[in-house]
Amino acid sequence: MPAAGPRCPGVRRRLPVLRWLPSYSLAWLQLDLMAGLTVGLTVVPQALAYAEVAGLPLQYGLYSSFMGCFVYCFLGTAKDVTLGPTAIMSLLVSSYAFHEPVYAVLLTFLSGCIQLAMGLLHLGFLLDFISCPVIKGFTSAASITISFNQVKNLLGLQGIPRQFFLQVYETLRRIGETRVGDAVLGLACLAVLAGLRAMKNSLPRASRGEPLAARVSYLIVWTSATARNALVVLFAGLVAYSFQVMGSQPLTLTGSIPRGLPAFRLPRFSMDAPNSTISFRNMVEVGARLGGRVGAPTASQNDYRIDPNQELLALGERPLGLQPRRSQGQRVVLPFRTAVNAQSGVCTPAGGLVTGALVLLSLAYLTSLFYYIPKAALAAVIISAVVPMFDAGIFRTLWRVKRLDLVPLCVTFLLCFWEVQYGIVAGVLVSGILLLYSIARPPIKVSEGDVLLVQLGSNLHFPAMECLRDAICSHALAAFPPRSVILDCCHISSIDYTVVVGLAELQQELGKHGLSLAFCSLQDPVLQVLLAADLEGFQHFPSREEAGEALGFPGFSPRVGVPRLLWCGALEDEDGGPTFIRPPQLQCGELWGGWLLGR
Amino acid sequence: MPAAGPRCPGVRRRLPVLRWLPSYSLAWLQLDLMAGLTVGLTVVPQALAYAEVAGLPLQYGLYSSFMGCFVYCFLGTAKDVTLGPTAIMSLLVSSYAFHEPVYAVLLTFLSGCIQLAMGLLHLGFLLDFISCPVIKGFTSAASITISFNQVKNLLGLQGIPRQFFLQVYETLRRIGETRVGDAVLGLACLAVLAGLRAMKNSLPRASRGEPLAARVSYLIVWTSATARNALVVLFAGLVAYSFQVMGSQPLTLTGSIPRGLPAFRLPRFSMDAPNSTISFRNMVEVGARLGGRVGAPTASQNDYRIDPNQELLALGERPLGLQPRRSQGQRVVLPFRTAVNAQSGVCTPAGGLVTGALVLLSLAYLTSLFYYIPKAALAAVIISAVVPMFDAGIFRTLWRVKRLDLVPLCVTFLLCFWEVQYGIVAGVLVSGILLLYSIARPPIKVSEGDVLLVQLGSNLHFPAMECLRDAICSHALAAFPPRSVILDCCHISSIDYTVVVGLAELQQELGKHGLSLAFCSLQDPVLQVLLAADLEGFQHFPSREEAGEALGFPGFSPRVGVPRLLWCGALEDEDGGPTFIRPPQLQCGELWGGWLLGR
Repeated sequence: MPAAGPRCPGVRRRLPVLRWLPSYSLAWLQLDLMAGLTVGLTVVPQALAYAEVAGLPLQYGLYSSFMGCFVYCFLGTAKDVTLGPTAIMSLLVSSYAFHEPVYAVLLTFLSGCIQLAMGLLHLGFLLDFISCPVIKGFTSAASITISFNQVKNLLGLQGIPRQFFLQVYETLRRIGETRVGDAVLGLACLAVLAGLRAMKNSLPRASRGEPLAARVSYLIVWTSATARNALVVLFAGLVAYSFQVMGSQPLTLTGSIPRGLPAFRLPRFSMDAPNSTISFRNMVEVGARLGGRVGAPTASQNDYRIDPNQELLALGERPLGLQPRRSQGQRVVLPFRTAVNAQSGVCTPAGGLVTGALVLLSLAYLTSLFYYIPKAALAAVIISAVVPMFDAGIFRTLWRVKRLDLVPLCVTFLLCFWEVQYGIVAGVLVSGILLLYSIARPPIKVSEGDVLLVQLGSNLHFPAMECLRDAICSHALAAFPPRSVILDCCHISSIDYTVVVGLAELQQELGKHGLSLAFCSLQDPVLQVLLAADLEGFQHFPSREEAGEALGFPGFSPRVGVPRLLWCGALEDEDGGPTFIRPPQLQCGELWGGWLLGR
Repeated sequence: MPAAGPRCPGVRRRLPVLRWLPSYSLAWLQLDLMAGLTVGLTVVPQALAYAEVAGLPLQYGLYSSFMGCFVYCFLGTAKDVTLGPTAIMSLLVSSYAFHEPVYAVLLTFLSGCIQLAMGLLHLGFLLDFISCPVIKGFTSAASITISFNQVKNLLGLQGIPRQFFLQVYETLRRIGETRVGDAVLGLACLAVLAGLRAMKNSLPRASRGEPLAARVSYLIVWTSATARNALVVLFAGLVAYSFQVMGSQPLTLTGSIPRGLPAFRLPRFSMDAPNSTISFRNMVEVGARLGGRVGAPTASQNDYRIDPNQELLALGERPLGLQPRRSQGQRVVLPFRTAVNAQSGVCTPAGGLVTGALVLLSLAYLTSLFYYIPKAALAAVIISAVVPMFDAGIFRTLWRVKRLDLVPLCVTFLLCFWEVQYGIVAGVLVSGILLLYSIARPPIKVSEGDVLLVQLGSNLHFPAMECLRDAICSHALAAFPPRSVILDCCHISSIDYTVVVGLAELQQELGKHGLSLAFCSLQDPVLQVLLAADLEGFQHFPSREEAGEALGFPGFSPRVGVPRLLWCGALEDEDGGPTFIRPPQLQCGELWGGWLLGR
């Protein structure tokens, strides 16, 4: 196996396990074991809690937690990452699973297929079009939605609808029906979790120089803070068990969970329910939307036999799949267990094997004990996990840094309360429209003098050609006498045929009035395209000064003329005379409300 | 009225008639009269022919021809333009009118509404995203479709289906049923039209110095060539009339056309037919697609009372409506009548009034004569009008200038034979994806030396951040020892929040390895955003040299290091060592076939 490494870099890239396995050592094994165990103590209670968020039977959380660990061990490159369900993924699944595992399995399968297709078609770059404000708006809204979704479990309320606004209304209306036992336990768990989290954050780093007692107490505090989910669930379970033994039960319990694993088989493509066709399409839709980001981990949820093969292929494609793209993790929220893994001193992805084994063991031996876990404790685990995802500061930051980005943020944030997937789609569309607008209306710098010097602030793509032509024609022909034009192309790195045609027409139009159009500072690829297009009367010069000289203004320099610099968006006035043109952001601002002006 | 001019520039902009009417003179009136008459002789036969293309009763072509003339006279700015139906507009109407004027009227109304909405929402910039290859592909395909659609009339065949492929099959299968009279007349008309067109193109320009006889003969040739449509239709009508008088009729005639105008009323929103709902939605869809380009002229087709008001508003918005955008006309095909108008020496848009009056007069007095117009003659008029729209050279030109643009061209061209609107939509989508890809994968220039100098070839939008980070990290950290990075931002004119976050994370990641990230040549708006974002350890310098000095390489200059210039698309190799990265076009080429490589 190690021989495959140096000889076949392709195999090594597709199977990163070959990079670290040949040099695996006993010291690494110890550290990986410890880290795997610690992560396992976080993963098991979170898996149960996330199944609750997804509206599925709790064992499905465990089913979905171990496969990712095993697969990632072979295909992953980052030692810190452990894969499994996340809160947001569970929320998305809940919209389409209808409390029915069959749907979740099919959803998983289709997400995997779509991801695979996207990987094979090299469409991974489409994921780059989900901008930071959209992700922030989505995670902040999801944090609120998921938290509030658990309030009903925290208070022991039954039969609350799933839709957010109905949920808020029903929860507040029926707040009098709160079960005291659930509420007290839930709030106590929340307080303990918050306390342990705060303690861990303020824990000073232990150093080798300190006495043994200090180091041991540090270790105890660190472990209890790190495994706080397991601790809280364990103690809550003990409380519930004591009540059960005493014969009275004031807590809502999880109930029985089947032991072991279901049979391995293909997912079912049809349901007996009358609306099966519609939901199939729904699944395809959501799968398409979530594609690479959520697909891969979800794909490992249940179809043990099918998905690993697909993932194997999907993983090979760099922009997709389990190999973490550096920012994806950080941009969304670095999952807690990954942070735990890093802090536990994991050395290789083999730590995931231990975690996966722990989940399997708990499925084999602990399911009878899970019966006693109070729902309020799981609700507390979820709430304490998702509340930090809410980022109130982002609104202030965007106001300060880039106001226009508040538009996709707010659109996503608000629509996510209606339906998460609509929020994401709308946010991506809005940021896409803003992006396209900025491409269609690039900044154009016009310096007036004996010759008109026009410089584009950014690259010139086909949608901007019309606007550039309008700007140049109006400036060149409006003045008396009309002036020739030097087009400084230093910022243009590539042009397409529409631009070539537009430039040729511009040259003709200026030629009709006896004016010239000279290009300067052309980059090489642009020059090649323009030469290939064989424009009539095409003149190009290395610099503005040489262009000015060729046009008959030997002393020409942009500094000699009257330097009037305008950042032009689109022409507004057709009455002739000097046209003062508004910057593109201003026009865009009009669209989205005057208060967005400025940046 | 003239007083409104100088005092209210807004009114003058919205009502351009106020600019020329106050100074109207008798000399202009003469020239406008002549030009209006000449254009009218072109418009009337073309109107009948285009109604045939649209699959509507022929009088609808005339109804739609005069309103635009009147409206444009008040709202238009270009003296040469006359509005009316075009071949492509008729083709599009034919897809949705189902030979039923009620649908065409509703389509017209909805197109107007959508256009008005787009104008009010300032969405005109969306039209810039229809690139030149898409328009060329569409017009070339439309030219073939429309021409072939008329072959059945040229040959006198009946009951040929509308769909292009079925049409070709049926026409070829039934070619034996050709009516000799129609075919002979049609081909003769085609030959005459082609001859007159060729004659006009080779006609030398008459000068004042020539003798009177030469000038008169020039005038005769010019007039007959210009009014060739009317002449051909007139002679064909005379031939048909002679046959009718002689008692035998070998030609297929147009048939009776009702005289005068229909009553003015609101369009009907429902049909007695069972499929009215579907067709309503269809109409909305096509209206949305064609929006500004086709909407306005179509809008004047029939709803005399409603549409002018809407157009009044829509026209004010610069990017939309009847005020011709310079390239729209030239990019598609400059309508023949507009060219005729210009050559006839028209002085003001008032020429349109004469043309409109001529159409109205023909509706009032000539409809009984239109009965005798042979369909084959109209088919010849259409074919000779649309054949020049086919541009075979565009394929060769694009192969030479910009091969990647062949993709949207071919997609549009081929799909337009299926359904014109699918072709346009697919072409716009394909060119949009290529555009987005080039934004998501900008050229990145990496010069290796003591310090890594990274320069972006174009502007930095959020989809490109991920790719830039990957490129910088792999280059900076792959080498031994790892190198600090200077990011030359001279081509970046604006950045958004996602980019700011990405740069901050990049800085952190480099900082973890003890490396620095220095920015140089920042444009002012970019610098302001980065300062507002308050990045930790943010360093910026006016030039590369100063940045190199600050990083501890006083002698640094990009020319001193080993200048390895790579144009990077995306990273391909993760095994470390020098990574030679493929240019973005190459990756894109993979997607669209290896033969697109190169440009």
